[in-house]
Amino acid sequence: MAGGVRDRMVAGAVRLLARRGLQATSFSTVLADTGAPRGSIYHHFPGGKDELVSAAIAATEEHALRLLDQQPGASALQVAESFLGAWRALLTGADFDAGCALVAVTVAADTPHPRERAADAFRAWRHRLARALNEGGLEVASAEATAMLLLAASEGAVVMSRAERDIRPFETVAAELLTHVRNLVDDLPAHDA
Amino acid sequence: MAGGVRDRMVAGAVRLLARRGLQATSFSTVLADTGAPRGSIYHHFPGGKDELVSAAIAATEEHALRLLDQQPGASALQVAESFLGAWRALLTGADFDAGCALVAVTVAADTPHPRERAADAFRAWRHRLARALNEGGLEVASAEATAMLLLAASEGAVVMSRAERDIRPFETVAAELLTHVRNLVDDLPAHDA
Repeated sequence: MAGGVRDRMVAGAVRLLARRGLQATSFSTVLADTGAPRGSIYHHFPGGKDELVSAAIAATEEHALRLLDQQPGASALQVAESFLGAWRALLTGADFDAGCALVAVTVAADTPHPRERAADAFRAWRHRLARALNEGGLEVASAEATAMLLLAASEGAVVMSRAERDIRPFETVAAELLTHVRNLVDDLPAHDA
Repeated sequence: MAGGVRDRMVAGAVRLLARRGLQATSFSTVLADTGAPRGSIYHHFPGGKDELVSAAIAATEEHALRLLDQQPGASALQVAESFLGAWRALLTGADFDAGCALVAVTVAADTPHPRERAADAFRAWRHRLARALNEGGLEVASAEATAMLLLAASEGAVVMSRAERDIRPFETVAAELLTHVRNLVDDLPAHDA
């Protein structure tokens, strides 16, 4: 199935970006990782590697937004807990050998397009996270600033835990972030959490 | 001067790591960037690229620790402001085209040694930052957790500001972090800040 091959290649590119970085994510490594036939490259990605990387960024963004869509009615604290839980699962599920594909692209991009596509994904992600925090009880400005802090601190903590092969940097940051959200909820004028 | 060539090559490697990532930091790009003679490679770095990258990580760590050493007597809030100021200078000084060499190494390392060296640097950096925050008035446990949060959130915010070529993600996170530190200082039993 043609669609299946493309999806498999995109998933392989996401995995390679998250584990080995942008330069190690090439058509040959993706083919080796997924077993896709060589002819799939020009059939599915006539735009070359930039098109493959952009598709991997789009898949990363969709995955992040889908996780946030899955919890209607969640409180701001539940939103933060679930957001941090997904990062924890990424780290421990890959034995500390995987991080965020968007970071991998940003720090090694040698053409503007993939970096700009990563920037769009960062924006979409934190806007959706801010909306969830707002729906969960935080005021708009506070939800936006908190979404930015949650995303930035998680990204940085994941890099440290990955470097150190140790969950402690991530858990320390996660605990600080949950305290931050709890304090905001407690400060709300009429909270019934 | 032999020492001068080596220092120039290490500085070039730091710059390339921060701007283009680990794979783009090769002996040929460092030679092109610094004008060092080709013979310098085996003379100064007989261990090959890993040795060059490790020296670049050591230089990054030394630079970070030196900045923290430069403010004896600073309050915890001043320490946080100065720490964030150094990141802001990195972003704006390089027109949003540079980040942290330690992140670049961690997300793209294909051998364990450079990643482990980056892990050591992360640990040394936040221990020094925690000590400065403790000397600036925070209790030990609070200083340690805050150092972890400051470093993680700055790293992540720098990646987002870099991707977006926009200071706003960084500034939003910086403001949240300063509020966090201010709240901790206000909560101290007997503060005279």
